[in-house]
Amino acid sequence: MKPDWIAVDWGTTHLRIWLMTADGQALQRIDSNKGMAGLRPDHFEPVLIDALRDHLEPGVTLPVVICGMAGSRQGWAEARYVSVPCKPPGIDQATHVPTRDARIDVHILPGIKQDKPADVMRGEETQIAGVMQIDPDFDGIVCLPGTHCKWAHISAGEVVSFRTFLTGEMFGLLSEQSVLRHSVADDGWDGDAFTDALDQAMSRPAAVAAELFSLRAEALLTDLDPVTARSRLSGLLIGLELAAAKPYWLGQDVRIAGAAKIATAYADALSAQAVPVTILDAETVTLAGLTAAYKTLQDA
Amino acid sequence: MKPDWIAVDWGTTHLRIWLMTADGQALQRIDSNKGMAGLRPDHFEPVLIDALRDHLEPGVTLPVVICGMAGSRQGWAEARYVSVPCKPPGIDQATHVPTRDARIDVHILPGIKQDKPADVMRGEETQIAGVMQIDPDFDGIVCLPGTHCKWAHISAGEVVSFRTFLTGEMFGLLSEQSVLRHSVADDGWDGDAFTDALDQAMSRPAAVAAELFSLRAEALLTDLDPVTARSRLSGLLIGLELAAAKPYWLGQDVRIAGAAKIATAYADALSAQAVPVTILDAETVTLAGLTAAYKTLQDA
Repeated sequence: MKPDWIAVDWGTTHLRIWLMTADGQALQRIDSNKGMAGLRPDHFEPVLIDALRDHLEPGVTLPVVICGMAGSRQGWAEARYVSVPCKPPGIDQATHVPTRDARIDVHILPGIKQDKPADVMRGEETQIAGVMQIDPDFDGIVCLPGTHCKWAHISAGEVVSFRTFLTGEMFGLLSEQSVLRHSVADDGWDGDAFTDALDQAMSRPAAVAAELFSLRAEALLTDLDPVTARSRLSGLLIGLELAAAKPYWLGQDVRIAGAAKIATAYADALSAQAVPVTILDAETVTLAGLTAAYKTLQDA
Repeated sequence: MKPDWIAVDWGTTHLRIWLMTADGQALQRIDSNKGMAGLRPDHFEPVLIDALRDHLEPGVTLPVVICGMAGSRQGWAEARYVSVPCKPPGIDQATHVPTRDARIDVHILPGIKQDKPADVMRGEETQIAGVMQIDPDFDGIVCLPGTHCKWAHISAGEVVSFRTFLTGEMFGLLSEQSVLRHSVADDGWDGDAFTDALDQAMSRPAAVAAELFSLRAEALLTDLDPVTARSRLSGLLIGLELAAAKPYWLGQDVRIAGAAKIATAYADALSAQAVPVTILDAETVTLAGLTAAYKTLQDA
């Protein structure tokens, strides 16, 4: 079976390509580590052509719909930011990128920006579009955990406001590169330690600054289990984020889309606050968002 | 003029050696990047002998008093931790390290530990001893900014309690390795931006989690000045620390010892809270602490 179009999520460190049918079914997924960060603008087309080499035919032009950092200033071609409040931007606001190879017809979707407080997203707007595609009447909060976790308020079909947290990146830096790296396991989970640290950080956010070094000190003095240390570190940082994001989730219906482990951690944390939470599969919502954009291209 | 003894501050990434007179005057300082982190236990003696090669004489044994990470489990020889409440530990609690070379007689000073909340220090106890040597009646708080900032409560000649903050290390990781590295200058200072961010973080600590990414977003959207971004990042992190350390500084007399720039930033922050602050020179207090230990060695 041959694809009708190509869906692409091109981030800072990853490239994910799906061969798609017209009705939004993925036939095959191609993963690559050729993220935006390692590419010059003139690299993007050859990388994409090479990844698709077994699937392109002479004389057939496949539409390619791309979301993510490929649209940044340092990417393939700069795509605009649409300002909130706005619907997730569609193909009519995308950047149409000229290519040497006539077998692809490339569109990079815009990001979303917010002036005050200043914030930006590139890629996550497509996941939000996917959540709204799956549930067009959704009114509430979309939470997208990851390196840079996004919280977006959705109402009446629009992104009203959003906020980004460095939680995932801070966890990576602290657990792998700070003095805590000696005391924090690479993997494993202690749910009770996570919950205790989460509660501590939510009820007294400033304490996080002091509790971080305690992980190292307890490792030295009382052989703190590295898995417990990892779970406490995660709980402290997510707790600090939840304390700050409270205006987003308090009294709201929250849809979470992200990798399974981290999405579950956020869901557990919010459920403990009596917040109604639904976890959605991250790949499903990304593809739903890209498919929604593809369909408007076909309608145009 | 020949030294009577050798003072050494041997940290994770640095080695500082002073040639000292019996009454505590430094004749010469020798700096090296041969910190503990890059050395195996059997490297320490040759490194020290090599650094002192022009100053050792046959038949003369010089006392060497060392503070810092050379006394950690991964260091030259493990020195104990003394538990709070305690006087800064003296030479009688130090680890006497056997050497092959009879021209040096090596003593590594202990660190201090605290069981609850768990905390440790190695090296800073000698700076605290120095502060108390300079002002034996001091009752108040010693604040030692740096990679890992320490706050210690001193009363009746003892360290009563202390707490460590990762603020300096987090600043380094965020400004040099996170997504913020694109938006934060390597140097420079905007005092107003620092103070505003400090106030923001102290009055609403959780907001720090959200304000970090705003530095990146403002750089993208409104060309935020990188020096302003650097100063705001510093203000946010120090503000979070000061919010957590409030039980230490509130209503107290604070002595700060650290590198000039960071000591001034902490002093400005505390002065704005009407806390009486004195800045002491970090090298002076380190040498005063090592000299106090040397003198008890002579008395022994």
